Amino acid sequence: MGNGAFLSFEGIDGSGKSTQARLLAAALRATGRAVTLTREPGGSPGAEEIRRLVLEGDPDRWSPETELLLFTAARRDHLEKTIRPAVARGEVVITDRFADSTRMYQGLTRGNLAAAVDQLHTLMIGVEPDLTFLIDIPPEAGLARATARAGKEMRFEDMGLEVQRRVRDGFLALAAQAPARFRVIDGNRPEAEVAAEVQAVATGWLAGR
Amino acid sequence: MGNGAFLSFEGIDGSGKSTQARLLAAALRATGRAVTLTREPGGSPGAEEIRRLVLEGDPDRWSPETELLLFTAARRDHLEKTIRPAVARGEVVITDRFADSTRMYQGLTRGNLAAAVDQLHTLMIGVEPDLTFLIDIPPEAGLARATARAGKEMRFEDMGLEVQRRVRDGFLALAAQAPARFRVIDGNRPEAEVAAEVQAVATGWLAGR
Ligand SMILES: Nc1ncnc2c1ncn2[C@@H]1O[C@H](COP(=O)(O)OP(=O)(O)O)[C@@H](O)[C@H]1O
Ligand SMILES: Nc1ncnc2c1ncn2[C@@H]1O[C@H](COP(=O)(O)OP(=O)(O)O)[C@@H](O)[C@H]1O
Ligand SMILES: [Mg+2]
Ligand SMILES: [Mg+2]
Repeated sequence: MGNGAFLSFEGIDGSGKSTQARLLAAALRATGRAVTLTREPGGSPGAEEIRRLVLEGDPDRWSPETELLLFTAARRDHLEKTIRPAVARGEVVITDRFADSTRMYQGLTRGNLAAAVDQLHTLMIGVEPDLTFLIDIPPEAGLARATARAGKEMRFEDMGLEVQRRVRDGFLALAAQAPARFRVIDGNRPEAEVAAEVQAVATGWLAGR
Repeated sequence: MGNGAFLSFEGIDGSGKSTQARLLAAALRATGRAVTLTREPGGSPGAEEIRRLVLEGDPDRWSPETELLLFTAARRDHLEKTIRPAVARGEVVITDRFADSTRMYQGLTRGNLAAAVDQLHTLMIGVEPDLTFLIDIPPEAGLARATARAGKEMRFEDMGLEVQRRVRDGFLALAAQAPARFRVIDGNRPEAEVAAEVQAVATGWLAGR
């Protein structure tokens, strides 16, 4: 996609994705790299509008299939308007969630959409991050952290422990299938300790390209 | 899809789709049939919100691919929330545009998306109307009628004569490929004359099921 790099953070709710994405962005900027820190759903003005449509209001207003199409539309806009241009400028793009989250939440937990998720991704998105940090924690720990936060976008957090367990197992299975892209990081440690490992891995990986 | 029937009107801008859909709905209601008159993009509360996102604002804000995904999301919602329930209740559903319009506008006139349009339809929509009226008029006549109207949703009308010509030819080619579903109606006649033919065809078709 250009001279830059495209990194993503994945993991269950409360695992520390947003925290670690922010810390990695700061660490790389401190070494002089240009970084675009972004997130999904959203990450571009159009995608943020679609995000609002999906995440606000009655949780049942969209079927799993319609929600999947809306998330894919948002991702396409995010890719075109934010990710590709930044990578082409030589920046490191760090996104808090990407297609792997859709594989889990829309593919695994809402109906049986895994095959449709993959076909839609191949048809309309087509790219994967160069490197994905899977921040792994026990669902109990993630749920405890997430519950401590407030906000109106609580749909996914409301899904409960059993669903988070399936999502965690699903993420670990994805990582095992694509070991060249994934780095599984133990997120059940103090923030700074997790951040140090993420930075070491990212720095080594960027140097080795 | 149930005991009712699912009819669509297609054709270039200004051909008389909305007029004829309305007149057919009134005529069928006058004979005692329950009719749901609807339109795309839109046709359900969620789909209308997506419609607003797509049709308002800068015409270049969405790429052809993102626009296609948004229209498909709207269609899925329209199908689930409006069309299927009405057909299941035994009603005649009449929609002003459906997937054939996407085959033309997103598939033919914006980039080379015809294959993606068809794959996405198969994957996420899957159904066609039972009967489709293609209201056919020369592009010059359609453009003259459409230009006489005002409104803020003028994106497609702004595309010009050459594009309308390709869309007309594309619709006629679609109709030739699926003669069991399509009825091509000469729309370049007085409203009442067109309506009489549409009603005769619809009534005969409904009686023959
Ligand atoms: N390693 C950590 N140990 C304890 N709490 C953490 C850790 N990392 C993040 N948190 C806190 O847990 C909550 C969830 O972290 P966040 O980064 O928002 O997770 P996510 O984006 O994966 O949902 C936040 O309140 C955050 O401050
Ligand atoms: N048969 C007809 N002859 C002349 N004008 C017509 C005819 N049918 C519709 N119109 C007018 O042409 C314009 C476009 O018709 P409309 O039904 O809105 O077309 P569409 O929905 O296909 O764009 C409207 O102003 C309508 O009143
Ligand atoms: Mg987060
Ligand atoms: Mg109309």
